[in-house]
Parts: sequence; structure tokens; C-alpha cells
Amino acid sequence: MEAKAIVKRLTKYRASLVTFSELGFKTIYSTNLGESIGESPEQVRKDFSRFSLKGNKKAGYEIEPLLESINQVLGKNIIQKIIVVGMGNIGKAFIQYKWFTTQNISIVAAFDIDPSKHNKKLGIPVLPLSELKEIIHGYNVQIAVISAPDSTAQEICDRLIAYGIRAILNFAPVVLKVPDEIIVHNLDLVNEINSMIYYVNNHKLYNL
Amino acid sequence: MEAKAIVKRLTKYRASLVTFSELGFKTIYSTNLGESIGESPEQVRKDFSRFSLKGNKKAGYEIEPLLESINQVLGKNIIQKIIVVGMGNIGKAFIQYKWFTTQNISIVAAFDIDPSKHNKKLGIPVLPLSELKEIIHGYNVQIAVISAPDSTAQEICDRLIAYGIRAILNFAPVVLKVPDEIIVHNLDLVNEINSMIYYVNNHKLYNL
Repeated sequence: MEAKAIVKRLTKYRASLVTFSELGFKTIYSTNLGESIGESPEQVRKDFSRFSLKGNKKAGYEIEPLLESINQVLGKNIIQKIIVVGMGNIGKAFIQYKWFTTQNISIVAAFDIDPSKHNKKLGIPVLPLSELKEIIHGYNVQIAVISAPDSTAQEICDRLIAYGIRAILNFAPVVLKVPDEIIVHNLDLVNEINSMIYYVNNHKLYNL
Repeated sequence: MEAKAIVKRLTKYRASLVTFSELGFKTIYSTNLGESIGESPEQVRKDFSRFSLKGNKKAGYEIEPLLESINQVLGKNIIQKIIVVGMGNIGKAFIQYKWFTTQNISIVAAFDIDPSKHNKKLGIPVLPLSELKEIIHGYNVQIAVISAPDSTAQEICDRLIAYGIRAILNFAPVVLKVPDEIIVHNLDLVNEINSMIYYVNNHKLYNL
């Protein structure tokens, strides 16, 4: 998906601009910024013009306003709250993933059907699904991760959407049915490995 | 990537054909097979003709030879051996993912730099990196998962390729440099979430 690639570049520009700013730079040229993340200056200018981030060919881009604009586009000017449903191995690994905090992403709560998993000391409260609605509304959460078994994923998905979730990252190996305005990204680990098996077995076909 | 979509459909055809076979069916029409996985009969015929899987418009496809051919294309006629490097939370969740066994995928060993993680009882041996070469050669492993920290990912990647790995699933949030003939799939969890944040904040831009 094109959007994922844009977000990845914007995230890299952001990290690079923070570094330049910390080094005392006030302005930066598209050439230097591009070099720092392995992109061409044309790509940098194209990306920035897409979001109306203005620079000056002679003086370059002013770092602070540029950072502020990128933060706004990426939603990094505020802490983004997400929830995770399903505390199996993948769900647990997900909520312990250390990189989220560096990105202003906060997992406000996790959920599981199994009462034995509630309130374990993982640093994030693990709650019963009966509290989904209250948490989503209370924190105004728009993004959820489903790491529940495939047999329950659709039902959980329906509830999440009914309570206001607009974007879902789905680890369950099932195609979720959602309304058009809801976005679902699927992370299907079996499909990832199957694709690689296919690649090593059918090298010549792979890029047909 | 187009290949991932094809592999996903072939995997679904395979599951569906196994079910039809268990129900006693000997042949199946592209219409029924398509319906069972939510694809058009045209898509089914297109996919099968790509791999020279022959059917007959009147009699349909014979299930057993079709399954055998799909298994061959997907590499499911033999057990596919993979290794996982990095036994942090994600690596541990990965090796415990129950769906792999249903797909003839076997994780033959996991690896970690940290001696305290070796030989823990996860059902799969966790070994020091000094044993990478022996395991890869001994089991003729071609596919590896990197779930190590980003600071060590490139070094691990280089070693894996030197020992014969051809396909890498990379969880480290870093772009790995590899020769052209090596395939890398990146699963960047932060980028996934950032893309969703971008979506909910810039709905109108998302599909530009």
C-alpha cells in the first residue's frame, strides 16, 4: 500500500530532523535530508509538497516548523492511544514492544476473554471484554489490534467498530468483514512464511 | 506484493480442497471452489492456468491431482524448515504460533546471543549463534526469521546469507541490505500502527 511507504518515509524524515535539530541545525536541504535516509532529493520534495510543507531552494527547509508539520500529518503531536484484544503470545509480545513509546503511541489497555489473564502485571491493564466500550469511549480510542483466535476475531471486530474503532491491525488468519470506511491491515504470519516458501521453491515464477 | 496475494489464494484453495476431499468429493468446479473462498470462477481458472493446473469445463477439476500440484507449488509436499534468530518477546511468540504446524512448517531451531535464553523449554531448541552454520547446513534451511534488536539485525542477516539462507522475514525496524537474489519481507509493527494513525488523522489523503 502506497500510504504505508509514505508513512515510513515521513517517520524517517521525522527521526532524521530530530537528530539534525539536536545537533544544532536550524535549516536543512532536501539533498541532505534525502541522503540521511537513503532517498533522492526529488522524493523528499515530492513528499513534502504533497503535504504542503514549504521549503526554499536556496535556504532549504526550516527544521522546527517542518517537524511540527510532519508531526501533525503523522499524528505525533499528541499521544495516540490504542488497545489490544487477545492476550495470547502475540498479543503479549505486542504490548511489550518497546518501540511504541518512542513514537508517542500508548497502549491504554489490553483485553482478553480469559479471566486468568486479567490484571496481570504486564505494565498495561488486561481487562475483560465487558469493559471494551467504556475504555474506547473514555480514551477516545480509534485504533485497535486484534490478536485473538480466528474463531472470535469477527465478533470482536464487530464490537470494536460498534464502539467507534476506525482502524484495525489484525493478526488473526481470517478476512474480517468491515464497512468501507473502516481500515484493516492484516498481518498473517503463516501467509508471510508461505510466501517465502513459494519464493524459494518457484524463484522464476515469483516476479511474474 | 502480487506473489503474497497469489500464495494466500492458493493456500485457501488448498484448505478448501482438503475439506471437499474429506467430504468425499472427487472433482470440483471452479465456480464452487471460488465460492468457498470468496473468489470468482475466473480468478480460480486464471490462478490454476498460471501453474498449468488443468481442468475440464464440463467435468471440473480432479481434486487429488489438483491438491498434489498445489502442494508442490506451495512447497507443502515436504516439511519446510525455518529458523528464528532473536528470542525476545516477538521471537518467543513467533515460535509458539500454533498455525505453523498445520501448514507443514517446522521451526527447527531458534537462536539468541544471550546464554540465559539457551535451551529453555519452549519445545524448540534455543541455541547460541555459533551453531547457526551447522543447523542451516545440517537441515538445509533456506528461510529465516530475524526478531533480533535493530542494532544486530544487519550483522545477523549477513551471516544468515553467508550460510545459505535465501529468504528472510524481518521484524527489526531497519532496512536490511541484501544481494538481489535474496528476498526480505519486513514486518514493521511501528510502521503498521503509524499507518493507521495517519489514516484516522488524514482520511481524505489516505487513498490519494
